[in-house]
Amino acid sequence: MSTSLSFVGAIPTDKIRYNDQGLVPAIAQDYLDGTVLMMAWMNQESLQKTLETGDVWYWSRSRQELWHKGATSGHLQKLKAIRYDCDSDALLLSIEQVGDIACHTGERSCFHQVDGGVTPPTADTLSQVYGVICDRKANPKPDSYTNKLFAGGDNKILKKIGEESAEVVMACKDDDPDDIAGEVADLLYHTLVALAHHNVDIKDVYRKLQSRR
Amino acid sequence: MSTSLSFVGAIPTDKIRYNDQGLVPAIAQDYLDGTVLMMAWMNQESLQKTLETGDVWYWSRSRQELWHKGATSGHLQKLKAIRYDCDSDALLLSIEQVGDIACHTGERSCFHQVDGGVTPPTADTLSQVYGVICDRKANPKPDSYTNKLFAGGDNKILKKIGEESAEVVMACKDDDPDDIAGEVADLLYHTLVALAHHNVDIKDVYRKLQSRR
Repeated sequence: MSTSLSFVGAIPTDKIRYNDQGLVPAIAQDYLDGTVLMMAWMNQESLQKTLETGDVWYWSRSRQELWHKGATSGHLQKLKAIRYDCDSDALLLSIEQVGDIACHTGERSCFHQVDGGVTPPTADTLSQVYGVICDRKANPKPDSYTNKLFAGGDNKILKKIGEESAEVVMACKDDDPDDIAGEVADLLYHTLVALAHHNVDIKDVYRKLQSRR
Repeated sequence: MSTSLSFVGAIPTDKIRYNDQGLVPAIAQDYLDGTVLMMAWMNQESLQKTLETGDVWYWSRSRQELWHKGATSGHLQKLKAIRYDCDSDALLLSIEQVGDIACHTGERSCFHQVDGGVTPPTADTLSQVYGVICDRKANPKPDSYTNKLFAGGDNKILKKIGEESAEVVMACKDDDPDDIAGEVADLLYHTLVALAHHNVDIKDVYRKLQSRR
């Protein structure tokens, strides 16, 4: 999927069930952590242009015209994968969001409203936990175990990584599934604390993993 | 969010911009790994019932009636969080999918169609890598590094976990962001191989992490 040409033919654009306005809903999801960034509409022409160019094109219902997402703001969306659903009446786009901002408000995701306030949407569990850890770093709480780790610095955090990796090894040797899951959870949590301590984003780790696939 | 009551008031159901059929699209996303499972429609009554009961209710356009998702199949959807978008005309549901099957075809996600074939949708990077590792375990390839690890069993895999965790420690001591991201990626990959070797699902690890929040 390194070239945009590979998407032509991925979706039978003539078999998609467009609604009576000729449109189909398209959900854009971050390819690294799975965050849903926005939902907009495509007609057959915008879908075709998306597959051909590898940039995401929607149909603007308010302006009644083709909408090259990010052409003005610079926040283009680069297509990584595309799927359609069992009824052929909805699309799911896996994208790289240039600038990591999809919403016209400046928020990363359009889906940030809860009870009138702004709450960033949930992505995968590891990113959620990383987010909580970074929040503790920025806003320490007196009894927080995470803040005790930060206070101890590298020597305290890294000692725990050594300890937790040894516990993963022992749990595997015991072949105890519940224990393995628990010890891996501990290792991941402490590794995320080390990342936050060094200001390395979990998405940088995801990018490394994606580049090796 | 342990009781369903906490969702009443999360969404101002009277301020959502329903379309001319009185409906709003609702995207259901797995709360553990962020996989988009389906998109369906809600009217104000089904949204209200969802918020009140904590079970997801849609509006069935084909049957023109309220649709208690999973009431027949047993594949209920338990609401974990709900957000609406900047235009107030789309909803994003974070859910626990009972039975881990959302689609009437028996697939986990409705968004499994690419070029006429069945391709499970992408979730977060770690789950994607775990999926590739499990595929290598089921369908070995001659020159696969992952298969060499499986062939060596626990002693080969766990030795690498010790080695990679030591390399994370050294990269942190050097305070080199790119090196830290790379070594953490290595540690995560080998930890996923250990999980696959012991048939422990990455989602079991995510459940452990979620239960501690």
